[in-house]
Amino acid sequence: MTFPRALAFDVFGTVVDWYSSIARETNAFLSQYLPSVSPTDFALQWRELYPPAMRECVSGNRGFVVLDTLHYETLQTLLGTHGLDVSQIDPDVLWALAYAWRRLDPWPDVPKGLVQLRSRVPVVTLSNANVELMVALNRFNGLQWDAVLGAEFAQTYKPNPEAYLRTAQVLGLKPQQLCLVACHHSDLSAARACGLLTAYIDRPMEYGGAPAPDAGYAQDWDWQAKSFTELAFQLQS
Amino acid sequence: MTFPRALAFDVFGTVVDWYSSIARETNAFLSQYLPSVSPTDFALQWRELYPPAMRECVSGNRGFVVLDTLHYETLQTLLGTHGLDVSQIDPDVLWALAYAWRRLDPWPDVPKGLVQLRSRVPVVTLSNANVELMVALNRFNGLQWDAVLGAEFAQTYKPNPEAYLRTAQVLGLKPQQLCLVACHHSDLSAARACGLLTAYIDRPMEYGGAPAPDAGYAQDWDWQAKSFTELAFQLQS
Repeated sequence: MTFPRALAFDVFGTVVDWYSSIARETNAFLSQYLPSVSPTDFALQWRELYPPAMRECVSGNRGFVVLDTLHYETLQTLLGTHGLDVSQIDPDVLWALAYAWRRLDPWPDVPKGLVQLRSRVPVVTLSNANVELMVALNRFNGLQWDAVLGAEFAQTYKPNPEAYLRTAQVLGLKPQQLCLVACHHSDLSAARACGLLTAYIDRPMEYGGAPAPDAGYAQDWDWQAKSFTELAFQLQS
Repeated sequence: MTFPRALAFDVFGTVVDWYSSIARETNAFLSQYLPSVSPTDFALQWRELYPPAMRECVSGNRGFVVLDTLHYETLQTLLGTHGLDVSQIDPDVLWALAYAWRRLDPWPDVPKGLVQLRSRVPVVTLSNANVELMVALNRFNGLQWDAVLGAEFAQTYKPNPEAYLRTAQVLGLKPQQLCLVACHHSDLSAARACGLLTAYIDRPMEYGGAPAPDAGYAQDWDWQAKSFTELAFQLQS
């Protein structure tokens, strides 16, 4: 096994706990406008609207649109589904809610584990988040990266191969020298198809304990760990 | 004066002292191959070859080529000028020398001042360096940025307007909300023409005490300081 020359991280789910953070961040709004909707259900529903919105861009049906905008659009769709007339709500209020995705807490093992991993090799984000969102999120949770790469740099979303290959290229690496760290089998599967190394992080609470939708993509990944600190330990040996 | 929402930094000269660092990093090679050439003269000569090489890309005569490659090419040119037959030297040795630009020390005020500035607003690099070079340089000198933007992200070199405007755009800012921090009047002049705010940092020793080549571009910039710590103080008030 080649030791990775750099680590590229999926962020939503792998680094941060979007499920409980989005529930927390939408709680006040829902209490006021949709008190019968559970914030954790709302978080799951909002997340479910993201893959189809993104696929419109990956498929070429739509040009590249940054994730902040997709969050804003899917938020309006979801609120409409719950019977809310979004045209009656101040767009600034809706944007502040869409920016909930900039205020997500890391999993408990992440701050320490990321420092350990970064002491060995460069660590970069390889997320579908746009740069503005990722910069805000990193400043919110205090995580330090060597670079913010991924979708906006490549001008296409994962799982388009270009998102992975462009990240390796700007780091001056061959695909097999870069390792994707992710809690999603589907993401790792696409990365492996591009030649990248793969490290799976188990995040059983990503969907609040519900099964992940991509179990069918499970493979024997190059590394498998329950936390960033465990991955750092594995990569020491 | 609008308070900047983010600060974008020129790096070579503004953040790091390339003059004495390149002299240090080339000293051993020159002692062996060109003992009559002074390392500080060599540093100045190498730097002089950079603007014309870059302009080939800005003008469109040549596609975008990353700065590491331009450093490698101009190194070969310069060694040839001094009578060395570079075809007789191991390319790995030449590349290691070209990577001298990844091992540059920051000016003494930078580590503390950058932390102070970053505590207020996001700080990003807006350099002509490619991502790989910048990541290596940051890891060498321990500086922390919110993102590595600039030439490679924009796929064009400063002073092309797109390099400045694309940086503002991916940060979600209007040009007048982003401030370029640089020790080069020419760089600041191009940024101001794009609508950016401008902060001049005086680096009288950038060329080892010799006058800077771009004095003719001097203007009354929005902020002027002798150090990052002084700029941080000015931006507090």
